[in-house]
Amino acid sequence: MSAERRVEALGLTLPEPPRPLAAYVPSVRAGDLLFVSGVIPVRAGQPVCRGVVGGEVSGEEGYEAARVAVLNALAVIRHAAGSLDRVRRIVRMTGYVASREGFVDQPAVINGASDVLVEIFGEAGRHARVAVGVAALPMGVPVELELIVQLLPEDSQAR
Amino acid sequence: MSAERRVEALGLTLPEPPRPLAAYVPSVRAGDLLFVSGVIPVRAGQPVCRGVVGGEVSGEEGYEAARVAVLNALAVIRHAAGSLDRVRRIVRMTGYVASREGFVDQPAVINGASDVLVEIFGEAGRHARVAVGVAALPMGVPVELELIVQLLPEDSQAR
Amino acid sequence: MSAERRVEALGLTLPEPPRPLAAYVPSVRAGDLLFVSGVIPVRAGQPVCRGVVGGEVSGEEGYEAARVAVLNALAVIRHAAGSLDRVRRIVRMTGYVASREGFVDQPAVINGASDVLVEIFGEAGRHARVAVGVAALPMGVPVELELIVQLLPEDSQAR
Repeated sequence: MSAERRVEALGLTLPEPPRPLAAYVPSVRAGDLLFVSGVIPVRAGQPVCRGVVGGEVSGEEGYEAARVAVLNALAVIRHAAGSLDRVRRIVRMTGYVASREGFVDQPAVINGASDVLVEIFGEAGRHARVAVGVAALPMGVPVELELIVQLLPEDSQAR
Repeated sequence: MSAERRVEALGLTLPEPPRPLAAYVPSVRAGDLLFVSGVIPVRAGQPVCRGVVGGEVSGEEGYEAARVAVLNALAVIRHAAGSLDRVRRIVRMTGYVASREGFVDQPAVINGASDVLVEIFGEAGRHARVAVGVAALPMGVPVELELIVQLLPEDSQAR
Repeated sequence: MSAERRVEALGLTLPEPPRPLAAYVPSVRAGDLLFVSGVIPVRAGQPVCRGVVGGEVSGEEGYEAARVAVLNALAVIRHAAGSLDRVRRIVRMTGYVASREGFVDQPAVINGASDVLVEIFGEAGRHARVAVGVAALPMGVPVELELIVQLLPEDSQAR
């Protein structure tokens, strides 16, 4: 099943691609790599959740926030590549988790995003990953994600 | 107008390329991508500003620090590529902002660097971007930047 | 001397490649670049050190933790590439140091990893580097590393 069909089958709705808050762009392609700007858990531009994990935000809420954030990344990728079916591989994701001192289960939070990628892309969605706990994130959200994606060559058949 | 001429027209002076503080190098090229080591707001090796944003350092001072930091990155790029005119595209910048708990406007701080990139490179300066708030940075500075840059092929005419 | 022989000569033992804690993989190759997932200072899956640098953990202990962490990265690289002798260049390393407020010598900590890379790979081990201080890291460890490595072309002679 193609990635786009799987999005449909899973009942997921991708948001409008988020608009950058400043003098940058949602993604840049260099060769077959697409570098995606940091995405946060917003719907219609509004954060779905604010606070630090281990504080106001629980690990479960962080997991859900990571799911919402990665949908924004997918919206950017679809917009840049024309279709999610142009994705050859999710190469790497860095997950930043706003963390109260002592909260050290960043991997469980970022799983919210990793799980979506594997649901949609299957083996091609298995990525290298980094998860770290940071002091604070834009708009006070608990999670920010950064992705590098490998696209199919421009002239290749969509999968 | 070429990037080098624009640096001149803007009255900007690039510093000496910063010397790494240890067993690493200012940049590494792999294919047409140049990976630039983290740069901080130093002039002649001395921080122009210390502290965390939202604490001792205001957002405006953070913005200025980001401007100074990105000039150090440009010095590294010029040194590695021979000229800023060899830059095809600024691909991605990650901006780390040392942030007091509760300071969540990292994007406004990192705009100090993004604005310089667009002033100098125009459309080619529009980059993918990540902005996060961290606990502390080397030498106590409020901002650190990491860039990935795409260079023109070695044998191409300088723009 | 080849990298593999140097590992031997230095009396270093690489651990088993660490197993990801979730729905991701230890590394992903895209073209000649290998993106390595975040590695932490574990032996046999257990952290060799916990706490934040500048707090429970001293700078020297952080340096030692960075040495252990980079051995895990090397184990991943060897497993992915078949041999460390397939490494053309260590391109970039990002070092995250869990830091108490006021601890600003992240570079000295990350040197623990950089020094090992240069010991093993010589000039090819000199990398671009970023060092930042973060709030918290998975399992409570003081150091996490992320590497991008350039491999030799598949059909080239091993060095």
